[in-house]
Formats: sequence, structure tokens, C-alpha cells
Amino acid sequence: MVGGETLFVYFLGTAGALPTPNRNPSCIMVRRGSDTLLFDCGEGAQQQMMRAKTGFAVNAIFVTHWHADHYLGIFGLVETMTFCGRTEPLTIYGPPGVVGFVEIIHRLTPRIPFVLHATEVADRDVMLFAGYSVVAFKTYHGIDSVGYVLEEDMRPGRFNRDAALALGVPPGPLFGRLQRGETVQIIRGDAEEVWVTPDQVMGSRRRGRKIVYTGDTRPVKNKNDLLEGADLLIHEATFAEDEGQARAKEVWHSTALEAGMLAAAAHSRILALVHFSSRYTTAAGHIQDAKACFNGEVIAPADLVMIEIPFPSE
Amino acid sequence: MVGGETLFVYFLGTAGALPTPNRNPSCIMVRRGSDTLLFDCGEGAQQQMMRAKTGFAVNAIFVTHWHADHYLGIFGLVETMTFCGRTEPLTIYGPPGVVGFVEIIHRLTPRIPFVLHATEVADRDVMLFAGYSVVAFKTYHGIDSVGYVLEEDMRPGRFNRDAALALGVPPGPLFGRLQRGETVQIIRGDAEEVWVTPDQVMGSRRRGRKIVYTGDTRPVKNKNDLLEGADLLIHEATFAEDEGQARAKEVWHSTALEAGMLAAAAHSRILALVHFSSRYTTAAGHIQDAKACFNGEVIAPADLVMIEIPFPSE
Repeated sequence: MVGGETLFVYFLGTAGALPTPNRNPSCIMVRRGSDTLLFDCGEGAQQQMMRAKTGFAVNAIFVTHWHADHYLGIFGLVETMTFCGRTEPLTIYGPPGVVGFVEIIHRLTPRIPFVLHATEVADRDVMLFAGYSVVAFKTYHGIDSVGYVLEEDMRPGRFNRDAALALGVPPGPLFGRLQRGETVQIIRGDAEEVWVTPDQVMGSRRRGRKIVYTGDTRPVKNKNDLLEGADLLIHEATFAEDEGQARAKEVWHSTALEAGMLAAAAHSRILALVHFSSRYTTAAGHIQDAKACFNGEVIAPADLVMIEIPFPSE
Repeated sequence: MVGGETLFVYFLGTAGALPTPNRNPSCIMVRRGSDTLLFDCGEGAQQQMMRAKTGFAVNAIFVTHWHADHYLGIFGLVETMTFCGRTEPLTIYGPPGVVGFVEIIHRLTPRIPFVLHATEVADRDVMLFAGYSVVAFKTYHGIDSVGYVLEEDMRPGRFNRDAALALGVPPGPLFGRLQRGETVQIIRGDAEEVWVTPDQVMGSRRRGRKIVYTGDTRPVKNKNDLLEGADLLIHEATFAEDEGQARAKEVWHSTALEAGMLAAAAHSRILALVHFSSRYTTAAGHIQDAKACFNGEVIAPADLVMIEIPFPSE
């Protein structure tokens, strides 16, 4: 069962292949309750974490593909974790190549005082965590690459207080037990002992929140509804329409317009554009392009922007 | 012969082992005329170079030792050089380990379009460049490590205009030829043909400028005058006197006081303290400590500070 865990997204690095003075290479941090996950970890990520005051208690790192701007920050982060005496294991997930990559980390940082797991992932691999899962999906970047969906487990339905009162449940601890899924015994006014089950007082279960991160890719299709209804779709938008689709195809990237089209097709709530080519000094054009085909909220976060993902009102 | 080349030092990274939000890991850039050299290249160096607007036309990288905070930035820099289509060769100098390190660069960045040389250096190795040399010197950091001295070639002495006039040399092009080391023929007022040699009109040759960078080390001795008379001594000062020598010895580092003692013993002109432990939020204490035993100028540059080293007035 899912409680009301907080869910924050930190945009620690939003640059494309070349960083800029203001945008670091790719790095997205998701904090759900006390869990901290990194999606990609470009050069300088540890310093961005210092600037955002997030600390280094990362539980797992999900790499989308083995291009340097998506992983070089792991070396320094592991070095600093070592320096700080971390003992908790750390798992690095990524497409084929992850095992060799972790070997290189060990060559560069001898005597790491914690276990470093390397876990290879492919399309549709599901990684289960307490209260949510992360699912990899195949992307199209000219090399082995994946995106990731973080989806919370289903939440209980709404508690129908009126129904409970009508059944004779007295306000108080029994309400909480019903909400937690327990069947409770009550003694009604006519001294009759009766059982009240959760399904008599709880609405139908509700979906959790969903965050999708594409990494670098040509636009993907929303197969099997995997990307459907994301509260936040973080989509690469290397190019705006000035360069256009032809250029994006050439180098296995997406335009902001294409990101907007996926957001519309998959009914995303918020579209966050990232991974801008360093030729752009502003992302205003990208936002405009995406808005041309997507009615939801479109943002192009600066580095160190943090947003909270609330539960949808449903 | 050395002309009046400009000599600039960029403090691109002045942090100790752990960066801070404001200080990047170790990286010092020296630009002499059109040559650009890096001394150490910690994580995020390429972004610091963008911020300092130096460009990426680095001729050589000198690594003091193979601790991650001194070299991790090379990966991203080479990646970006590759992205930008660099074709000029690049040499990485460093203590034993440099060859294996360059192998790792090739594993991480396939298809580098320029030649990457790895050159192992040890105590007293001299690398000659046009107009200056770089000399490695052994340091004491618990692993193989070196510091570097950049010293300009000797400059011609001052031109003695009065002596030239007294010898009958007419003002004009002959003055320049004498200054460039040529012997010239003149016809004196009595119609006598005579030869005037440069040593008749030039003062004795003057030393060039000298920059010393220690990297991480316990204090070194000024053996064979190698460190003598530096215009700029860039010395690590991981600790101030609050932690003191005992702690510095334990971890193979120096205190600011020890840096000041070397600056005094070696008659440095300016002492720049770098590599502060992240426990310090200000370097004011370090400066005070160094000044207690060194009468020259003491600075603790912030990241991105650039200073010009003028010729000494002599």
C-alpha cells in the first residue's frame, strides 16, 4: 500500500552533449520519500548535488546509454562516497556495457568501501522498489539505449466516511484500520455484532504517480501504454524547429515538437524538455514548438530547478 | 631568444579532494603567448574553461598524481575536443600510470580524431617548449607524484642606447639587429669601417619568469635551486594551523604555514595557496598563516581568478 510519500524531481543537469557555463550534462534526481535515484549522471553531478543540497545518499543510478555526457559524473561521485566512508551498496543499472563500466570505476577508485552492483537492463525489464517500480524501455539513439519509467504502486481508493458512518462505524481508530485494508468488527446500536470490510467503505484503487525519462532518442511510440498518463514526461529536445527533424534524425535525437507530440499522444500532465544543443542560448523556441501540439504544461527547467509532483486530483 | 610573451595563470579549480559549490577540483591553466597548458584537470574543468572563456586549444596536460580530483576532468575535455573535431595531437604528462590512464580514455571515447600521447615523467625530467621548459620534481604524497616548474628561457640583457650611440651606431634598424644578437658594420664619422658586436651594447642576459606548481605534497625542499625565485609559487595548503602539521603529515598534505615557509626559503615573489580542505569556508586563516613566515604577496584565489605574471623589474 502506498502512503502519501513526497515526490521531488531535481534537474541537476539539462545540457546536451556539450555542457554550457550554466547547464551541466545530463542528470536527473528523483527523491521519493527517503529514496534517492539518479537518472544519468553527467560530469559535475556531485557538485550540482552540493549546490542543490541533496546530499549523496543515492540508492541507485540508472544510466540510459554509454555516451560520456550521461555517465562521467559517476566517477567523481563514487570517489566522494568513498571519501565520505559510505557503506551502503549502490547499484548502477544500464544497457550492455554496465559491467565493464563498473570495472573501470574500480580501476580509478581502488578500495571502494561499499558494494557496487552492475545490473544490465533491456526493454521491459522491471526493477521493484518499496512502493514503486522502475521499468526500462527501448529507445532509439543509434547505440544500445533505454529510457526509464518510474511508477508508484496502486494507491488505496478514497475512504467514504459517510458510508462508514451509515454502516455504524464510530469515528476513530476503526476508520484508520479500514483505510489500511483491515476488516473490523463493530457493535451496532441494536447490540448486533457485525463485520465491516474495506470494500464497503473504500473507493476503487487509484494509480500512483508516474515519471518518464527518455534519455537521448528519436521519438518513441507509446507501446502497451507504458508511457501513458505520466505526471511528468522528461523528454530530450536537442533541437528546435529551426534545425528540424532532418537534423535530429541524422544524429538520433528529437526535436521539441516531437517531444510535444509524444506528450500529447501519451496524455502526459507536464512535459519537461531537457538536453538542449549548446547552439541555443534560450529554450524559449523549444517551449513554443512543444506547445504547438501539446496542451499540457511545458517547462524547460534551468539547472538546479526542483519541482514537486503532487498526487493528481482524481 | 625570448620576446615579451604574455603570461597568464587561470585558477580553474582550487578545491581539495572534495569540491564545494564554489570551488572545483584542481586545475590550473597557464597561457604563455599562444601556448595553453593545463596543470591537473579535475572534474568539470571543461565547464570552468567555458566560464573563463579560454577555449579548448590545450597543447599539453601535466598531471601531478593519479588521485581522481586531479584528472577526472580529462575524460570530458577529450570528449568535447572530439566533438569539436580537434586534429592537433595532445600530450598528457604524468607519473607512472599515465599510459594506462590514456588507455582508459580510449575505452571511454572511441574514435578520438587526434593523437593522444602519454608521457611518463619522473623527478628532474625536462620538457622543452618554444621559449620555455617544464621540469618535473619529486613530491611527497604517499604515491608516485610530481610537481612542475615552468621556466622561461633566458632573455637578452637590456640594450644600452648610450653605449651604442657612443660607438657611433646611428639610431634606427641597426639598434634592432644588435638587440637580436647580430654583429653590425657601421661607417663612423672619420669614414672608418668598424664592427660593433652585441656584447658591446647589451647588458647581461636576464632570467625568464618562473611558475612552480606543487600539486599535493608534504612540503618539498628547494634542492639544486629548482624552485628558487619563482615569480609565482602555487602551493597546496590543504590545512590551516587549526588542524596543523600533525594532521597534514598523516595524509601527506601541507599546511598554509608550511607553504609560506617554502615560499620564504625559495624567495618566491607571489605565493598562491590552493587545494583547501572542504572543511574551510574561508581561506583567510590560510593567508594569515602563510604571511606569518613569508613577506611576499600571498593570495588564495577563488575559482576563475586570472592573474598576469609580468616580467620582474630588474
